[in-house]
Amino acid sequence: MPEANALFAAAAADARRRDAADVLAPLRERFVLPPGLVYLDGNSLGPLPADTPDRLQHALRSDWGQGLIRSWNDAGWIDLPVRIGDRIARLVGAAPGQVIAADSTSINLHKVLDAALSMRPGRGCIVSQAGNFPTDLYVAQGLVGRDADRVRLHTVDHTRLIEAIDEDTAVVMLTQVDYRTGERLDLRELTEAAHRRGALIVWDLAHSAGAFPVDLDGAGVDFAVGCGYKYLNGGPGAPAFLYVARRHQAAFAPCVSGWMGHASPFEFSPDYRPAGDIRRALVGTPPVLGLIALEAGVDTILAAEPLGGLPALRAKSLALTDLFIELAHTSCARFGLVSITPIDYDRRGSQVSFTLPDPAQAHAVVQALIADGVIGDFRAPNVLRFGFAPAYLRFADVVVAAGRLAEVLATGRWDQPRFLTRQAVT
Amino acid sequence: MPEANALFAAAAADARRRDAADVLAPLRERFVLPPGLVYLDGNSLGPLPADTPDRLQHALRSDWGQGLIRSWNDAGWIDLPVRIGDRIARLVGAAPGQVIAADSTSINLHKVLDAALSMRPGRGCIVSQAGNFPTDLYVAQGLVGRDADRVRLHTVDHTRLIEAIDEDTAVVMLTQVDYRTGERLDLRELTEAAHRRGALIVWDLAHSAGAFPVDLDGAGVDFAVGCGYKYLNGGPGAPAFLYVARRHQAAFAPCVSGWMGHASPFEFSPDYRPAGDIRRALVGTPPVLGLIALEAGVDTILAAEPLGGLPALRAKSLALTDLFIELAHTSCARFGLVSITPIDYDRRGSQVSFTLPDPAQAHAVVQALIADGVIGDFRAPNVLRFGFAPAYLRFADVVVAAGRLAEVLATGRWDQPRFLTRQAVT
Repeated sequence: MPEANALFAAAAADARRRDAADVLAPLRERFVLPPGLVYLDGNSLGPLPADTPDRLQHALRSDWGQGLIRSWNDAGWIDLPVRIGDRIARLVGAAPGQVIAADSTSINLHKVLDAALSMRPGRGCIVSQAGNFPTDLYVAQGLVGRDADRVRLHTVDHTRLIEAIDEDTAVVMLTQVDYRTGERLDLRELTEAAHRRGALIVWDLAHSAGAFPVDLDGAGVDFAVGCGYKYLNGGPGAPAFLYVARRHQAAFAPCVSGWMGHASPFEFSPDYRPAGDIRRALVGTPPVLGLIALEAGVDTILAAEPLGGLPALRAKSLALTDLFIELAHTSCARFGLVSITPIDYDRRGSQVSFTLPDPAQAHAVVQALIADGVIGDFRAPNVLRFGFAPAYLRFADVVVAAGRLAEVLATGRWDQPRFLTRQAVT
Repeated sequence: MPEANALFAAAAADARRRDAADVLAPLRERFVLPPGLVYLDGNSLGPLPADTPDRLQHALRSDWGQGLIRSWNDAGWIDLPVRIGDRIARLVGAAPGQVIAADSTSINLHKVLDAALSMRPGRGCIVSQAGNFPTDLYVAQGLVGRDADRVRLHTVDHTRLIEAIDEDTAVVMLTQVDYRTGERLDLRELTEAAHRRGALIVWDLAHSAGAFPVDLDGAGVDFAVGCGYKYLNGGPGAPAFLYVARRHQAAFAPCVSGWMGHASPFEFSPDYRPAGDIRRALVGTPPVLGLIALEAGVDTILAAEPLGGLPALRAKSLALTDLFIELAHTSCARFGLVSITPIDYDRRGSQVSFTLPDPAQAHAVVQALIADGVIGDFRAPNVLRFGFAPAYLRFADVVVAAGRLAEVLATGRWDQPRFLTRQAVT
């Protein structure tokens, strides 16, 4: 493949120049990245921040080990959900006091959907996009199962969402970036559409927060949830976050109530009285170790603020995904590889997804790439998914990844039993 | 106080003999305990296990840092909730496959109460003890608020529980050990009473699991929840656990549903289909870092198995609390200190609680003791609470604690502005 070699040699030279000129390049030092590996799965699990081990060791050996129970106050453990929530708020366009770090994305989504349904008592429909991430649909189905006489879930293709919102829509539940295709929805337009019909809206920012600017307050969003372990680098199963617009906080009353959401938890009153602020979204005791790791992860993205912040990260992400799409298209279209990620910037998240005609081949190609040190992932039925986290990826990584993808396809290296037989469980 | 000095001198000598003969003494080495401190608050936050920092460092630097997304399979992260659940099962008398580690105690209680209510559709009452731990009552109140036409919460003094259970009782929700008084309820008798009336029962084992033998299977319990950060030493805000008796698992269907409870989570099906086993109690992505710390904590108690296990821990706990009650009574009754913990072994948990007539004094005495290196805690209105975790406490610690309590009361040391003015928030 002399023409392919020439393509990648030129691309590599260009990538070196772009990396040398990249103002965000210093951020890469804030992560532990195994040498030689190109990690394109930060949209599934962000890598370990360099700070996290020391911060957790201090929390363990000093705060827990020596401070013991006193550290709830002395080390500020009790304030972690609010403190971290306010840091995440800076990444999603929220003024302080509206975001809190707690529980899992699924549990938080249950809380906000439940509260939203009770705030629109005359309406029974949850509208969502077909192909939404499964757990979001499962959360909604759980609420339907509880009250099937009133509540139903209506999923439609994302191109027909606006017309699907009507007078029976209590709440619109959308994930901004499609986990399979990487297509990004227009948060402002859909929020306005929901409000025009008198519905509330919940945004799942799993693939948004930390990847590009989000303007929750500016768009008038009602509720949002998001994930701590993708672009926020909080570690496997990190606590998630939720956003409740200040104007809704007094009415926010999910039926999941626990002592940390009480106005005065240490009064030990027998009667639940919700906190007057975002803390009413808390339930049980905060997961301190997970929160400390999450805070270290969030700080890796906040570290971009003096370097241009999320707009700069977004610009780099688009440049990285542009380059990957271009190189893959040029070198791999002849093998049937098709990009399903929008080329339009407004509709693109921070990942690139391709399909191959044969599902077994698509899976085997991803496995062969992993064996070759390029970690992406496979999503059924036939999607090859590559996440581009701009905080730590280099243009040179994009060239390596595209080159290996071309090589795997051109050489038929994927067509080996060990790649074809592996289970698709990651 | 020559007579008090003689009392404590004799007790100290006796304690040295008992510690030297204690077969459980080697367990103490499994914990990090600050030198000179007597820690009697393991019922609020267990101390740091010596193994935990290294286990977490390995999980961070190797599994997360190097393995990245692959560690969900390669490091067994995905199995942690079941694997740890099965270890906890050994501590609460449950056969494998019935306990899972997940979420918080409050969230887990919500799940089991919600499922129990739906399993008794013709009944509307949740019966609980007055003075149950607040979050348990708040969880129930959340479910009442959701469906007030049907569901109500009825709390009665624990001495009148059996007569309070009737044909309208859907579920009896009890905490086995009262967090204030340390009184322990008869798990078997109350479970039978609930079943006689056709009700289900949920036990909160927050102050039981890891402290003494519990026989969930043997007593025919339906559901249980418990805390990871007290006697299981899992760290601040550790994941909690829940137990669903195998006979109920097929019917167990809380409305909180998420992808980790799906029969096949990585199939990414749009329709929720619960797992056929205890995994259906999972919701979101497992909190890996917290689970690894929890596992290290659970292992500190499992390490007692070759030394006599929970029966030996229970015997030592009773001996420790006996000694503390006796020394405190002998030396402090004249200051108005009264034990509110039952002297009857069958009705005693693993803590000792006292009252003083004046709430401000009770609070100040606890603060003065903490300043003197004896950490207990205060519970409103006037309770001094001391937990006795038999895995790491020595008889000598009991003598020191009782001696300092007597000294604080006898000298009036508590009567200083810095002790009297501190907020009671721990």
